[in-house]
Amino acid sequence: MSSVQKIAVLGAGTVGSQVIRLIEEHQADLAARAGARLQVESVLVRDVNAKRDFEVDPALLTTNANEAIDGADIVIELIGGIEPAFTFVKRALGNGSTVITGNKALLAQHGAQLYELAEQNDTDLYYEAAVAGAIPIVYGLRESIAGDRVNRLVGIVNGTTNFILDQMTTTGATYEDALKKAQELGFAEADPTADVEGLDAAAKCAIMASLAFHTRVSMADVTAQGISSITAEDIAQAAKSDMVIKLIAVAERSNAEGKEGITAAVYPALIPVSHPLATVAGAFNAILLDNESAGRLMFYGQGAGGTPTASAVLSDLVAGASHRVLGGHAPRESRYAKLPILSPGIASSRFQVSLLVADKPGVLAEVAGVFGQSGISLITVSQEMAKPGEATRVTLSTSATSGKSMDGVLAKLRDLPVVVEVASVFRIEGEA
Amino acid sequence: MSSVQKIAVLGAGTVGSQVIRLIEEHQADLAARAGARLQVESVLVRDVNAKRDFEVDPALLTTNANEAIDGADIVIELIGGIEPAFTFVKRALGNGSTVITGNKALLAQHGAQLYELAEQNDTDLYYEAAVAGAIPIVYGLRESIAGDRVNRLVGIVNGTTNFILDQMTTTGATYEDALKKAQELGFAEADPTADVEGLDAAAKCAIMASLAFHTRVSMADVTAQGISSITAEDIAQAAKSDMVIKLIAVAERSNAEGKEGITAAVYPALIPVSHPLATVAGAFNAILLDNESAGRLMFYGQGAGGTPTASAVLSDLVAGASHRVLGGHAPRESRYAKLPILSPGIASSRFQVSLLVADKPGVLAEVAGVFGQSGISLITVSQEMAKPGEATRVTLSTSATSGKSMDGVLAKLRDLPVVVEVASVFRIEGEA
Repeated sequence: MSSVQKIAVLGAGTVGSQVIRLIEEHQADLAARAGARLQVESVLVRDVNAKRDFEVDPALLTTNANEAIDGADIVIELIGGIEPAFTFVKRALGNGSTVITGNKALLAQHGAQLYELAEQNDTDLYYEAAVAGAIPIVYGLRESIAGDRVNRLVGIVNGTTNFILDQMTTTGATYEDALKKAQELGFAEADPTADVEGLDAAAKCAIMASLAFHTRVSMADVTAQGISSITAEDIAQAAKSDMVIKLIAVAERSNAEGKEGITAAVYPALIPVSHPLATVAGAFNAILLDNESAGRLMFYGQGAGGTPTASAVLSDLVAGASHRVLGGHAPRESRYAKLPILSPGIASSRFQVSLLVADKPGVLAEVAGVFGQSGISLITVSQEMAKPGEATRVTLSTSATSGKSMDGVLAKLRDLPVVVEVASVFRIEGEA
Repeated sequence: MSSVQKIAVLGAGTVGSQVIRLIEEHQADLAARAGARLQVESVLVRDVNAKRDFEVDPALLTTNANEAIDGADIVIELIGGIEPAFTFVKRALGNGSTVITGNKALLAQHGAQLYELAEQNDTDLYYEAAVAGAIPIVYGLRESIAGDRVNRLVGIVNGTTNFILDQMTTTGATYEDALKKAQELGFAEADPTADVEGLDAAAKCAIMASLAFHTRVSMADVTAQGISSITAEDIAQAAKSDMVIKLIAVAERSNAEGKEGITAAVYPALIPVSHPLATVAGAFNAILLDNESAGRLMFYGQGAGGTPTASAVLSDLVAGASHRVLGGHAPRESRYAKLPILSPGIASSRFQVSLLVADKPGVLAEVAGVFGQSGISLITVSQEMAKPGEATRVTLSTSATSGKSMDGVLAKLRDLPVVVEVASVFRIEGEA
């Protein structure tokens, strides 16, 4: 075959430099699979003299974005962030180039516009690398499960928070110390906000929910709660109940007053140690899909890192090049279901509530009464001396109920004179 | 959209009747996703009066295969077995119809010819349902990992043997009793040969290996060893080493005298309880891929059953219909790598060998000496009284070595006068 696909790579950082290396090293294999020789023609960088993980041919480097983008058959965007990535991707799609991006923030914020531009210009948009690194969850949702009905997805999709929580669990460290350790080892950025406040996971949640439910879900539709207020005490309490705390992204079909919609949220949850997500450690990610016909499916793999993420980019590259050569297209945006986004408070789960209460007779009955009045059953109750002579810790786990009902219960509990403090409230992931 | 895709379903058994039900129940969703209304026009059955899981409109039923096949846009073959399925699928492809099949035996034996026919007639062949039920491993290998280099795949892909081995592990039952139980519960057929002798897993292994290594691998290339000779004693011994016995399908890149090739085999292996495959129980299947860039990926889900398998068929249906309406094609056969199939004896792993030896001083040294002479290190050695006054059981686990080297060691062990019997030999799956 003599066909050549000209490629522009925007950004030669951790992922970009691996993409360039792999295209070079696997030239023959990729050509056989894509039906065309894949030729990197230009690499957009901020500084042509910067040191890189993989030595890129200096003749390919440019600081001129339009020069890199114009004339490329396929543009691979690995800059990250909204601007200038958004402008570059729009220009590439406008040119009719196939775009492959690993940019979750861009997708979660402007995905709909990018899909439209791709369609208008009869070209394709790929973004497997934007969610969960090497795990083919975009393919999974966009194609593999397209004949089924996804009812719920739950995933561990952020390595930084997973590392910090692992660290707290295994060493008993405080959040602050675990974060410092993560930063020292390069698992967390100097400004860790996007990761620890759940914003990175929320962007991925929006992308996955859009695909799973055939509905536009943007970053703003996902309620994010991070891990920065998790204490060593919370972790220790979880261990006592044979559970671990993980930051999870959850999107599911829900019903509010008979109207079907979806909820999407990121929050730290208690996960029983026997649950498949409990053992997903460090840089690994996993996504569980609960489907009407297929039942439960799990995808597991490395969620970050230069080479694993580059693998996802290269799969998109083979698909994208092959469609340019042999015809056909990547799936278009599927948003026909247009399900309303409902408040995540209506989503139902079990809860664990930890209270500090006055050390008096009859307190437990009083507390249990509040749950009973709201029609919430208690599954487990345990009591222990927290601050000797001062207060007792009562930890209760409930039957499945909505966040809204739980908020009502918590307000009533806080009004009880015997309740010193609501120490923690977590949703429990797993069997309801 | 006014486009209609006419569908013929060949076979209305466990899977077929669910496929027909789901097409009907999800008419609107499937039309929105596929870009065309999906209309079942005929259902080929052996007996129009047979009782079915789902009531099929009698007007659709026919016993005339050609009548069902001719004129259909999409033919879904769910009859199973080689003939008459092979003839029907060839006719459908010859007509230019898209074919979706769940027939692993047909694919593993005649896949190459079917791919050629599809290409000659400018149509598509889909078979997600042929391997591991609802798990999208065909999509995974054919598309999601197409930019990477798979080094090894290992999977639990047969529910019957998984059930029988689980049963033996949890209840201490013999193979015969566990098989009988499986037959009573409908997990094993009256003639269980294809499952228990590893032939079903071998067919799936051939299909997966073809995709993973871009090489034609047929059923005949896969060495299959079943579970019918596994004893309750083997299971008990495994438990003592914190391992379980599972029937696994393994295909990997190997080198024989500097020549790269692949090996493909199905065999019962010892799996450490901490290994991700150890907890894959009952009807669940899982496939691990070890890839050069992506690292390890795991796909997990229900490997059999009417509805999960129907889910896989429906994903293919959405993709197939969408390609007929919007253009484009399913991936063609990718066989460019043409790697030679090597003897599975060259594949390297750890081994566990259990011996009955004479109860004499110096026996252990003699046995260990045989391994040492062959350059194989022993990692663990344990000794216990097996038959009081008669023989002692010695269980040894080795460092990674080839099956060929192990065969040499076993021959020497059998020649040792102190060795009463080589009671069992298993490969150990996991860290080498």
